Formats: sequence, structure tokens, C-alpha cells
Amino acid sequence: MGKVNFQDKFSKFDEHWTPKVIAEMNDYQFKLVKVQGEFVWHNHSDTDEVFIVIEGCLKIEFAEETIVLNAGEMYVVPKGIQHKPYADEECKVMLVEPKGVVNTGEADSDLTASNDVWI
Amino acid sequence: MGKVNFQDKFSKFDEHWTPKVIAEMNDYQFKLVKVQGEFVWHNHSDTDEVFIVIEGCLKIEFAEETIVLNAGEMYVVPKGIQHKPYADEECKVMLVEPKGVVNTGEADSDLTASNDVWI
Repeated sequence: MGKVNFQDKFSKFDEHWTPKVIAEMNDYQFKLVKVQGEFVWHNHSDTDEVFIVIEGCLKIEFAEETIVLNAGEMYVVPKGIQHKPYADEECKVMLVEPKGVVNTGEADSDLTASNDVWI
Repeated sequence: MGKVNFQDKFSKFDEHWTPKVIAEMNDYQFKLVKVQGEFVWHNHSDTDEVFIVIEGCLKIEFAEETIVLNAGEMYVVPKGIQHKPYADEECKVMLVEPKGVVNTGEADSDLTASNDVWI
């Protein structure tokens, strides 16, 4: 695999809430996603999940608080914790998580995306 | 753990080639490192290693080629592959790798750093 340029990869798709795999490290994947509006409440019962904001502003709502992430900031959502990402304007995000993780976790949703689409 | 701001963390240290842990996801760690000059040839026999350039320009020399990474670019060094990172000017990098990985891999070097220092 060659090097990956984030903005080059982001230029290849427009849809929201559909993570695209850009790299694998051991059994983990790095994914890029564009988000805007509200996602669904969900959790991942068997893994932590990393959010890194590349551009824009991402909010992650938890039961007791809301985390606000700007470009150059990251957050680790612990496994099993209910959370709902949302963004007032389009935001570009990198996710890091084990291969096979579904974006909506254990929630049943129209926003569930294929989980191994490379770009 | 709260959110992590990369530039805030980088402002807390000056030394080169000494990765600092900023976050854990399952049994993986995210580390920030400032690099300048030449590192040593080394490999990690049991894990891939991710380099993400936050600021500046990082070069990674391999037996047959040299990869040049600028800010907003990443590269996955496959396990077991000999490589030597270097940077003409100071460069800020994020590493992602399993907890416990030593920076110089199996090479014996004065550049070997403690591998679980948080910042």
C-alpha cells in the first residue's frame, strides 16, 4: 500500500455517514467519513472507537455530557458507552476501530452502512 | 479520558524521537513524537506501525524506496519491514501501534526510548 492523503481520499466521495476504509494496521482499520446532521444513539459492546477530526467540528453526545471536537482533536469512546455523533455543518472525520465494526453498533437504523468499503 | 488536542500535547515537550502516549484504544496506543534528523534502521517483527504526519515533512527510507509524507498524510509500515525515518526539519508525527512497542524495534540503539510515557 502506498501513502494515503486524507484530502485526496475525501475528494472521492460526498455522502454522509458512510465510512470508507483507507488503511489497515494488523486487524484494525482507518476510515474516513463525512458527517452532517444527527446520527443515531448506539454503542459498540466489544470495542473502543476513536474519532479524529480532520476538518470542521464534531459533537458527540453522551448521557451526561456532550464532547465538542475541532480539527486536530481526538476522542476515544469507550466500549459499551451509548453515544450519538452530530455535526451542525459538514465535518470530516477519521475513525480507527477493529475490522468488522458496524457504524451503528447494535442499533437498528437506516444509517447502517456497509463496513468494509475501501476508497 | 477527555478529548485530546494534538497541538496542546505537542507544546508540552521538545525532545526528539521520544514518543509520548496520548490515548489508548483497546490494547493500542496513540503516540505523538517530534522528529528531526536521522533515526536508526529497525523493524517491528510482530506488528504493523502507522505514521500520520501532523505538521512538517517525514521521510521513511526502505531498502528499495523512500516515502515522503507531508501533513495530512499517513503510511502503514508492514510488520517485519526494515525502515529508517528521518526529517530534514522538525516534524510532528502521530504513531499508532499496539501497547508495548519499542520505538527502535529489535535494533540496539541510543535512541531507544521508554515505551509507555504519557503526556
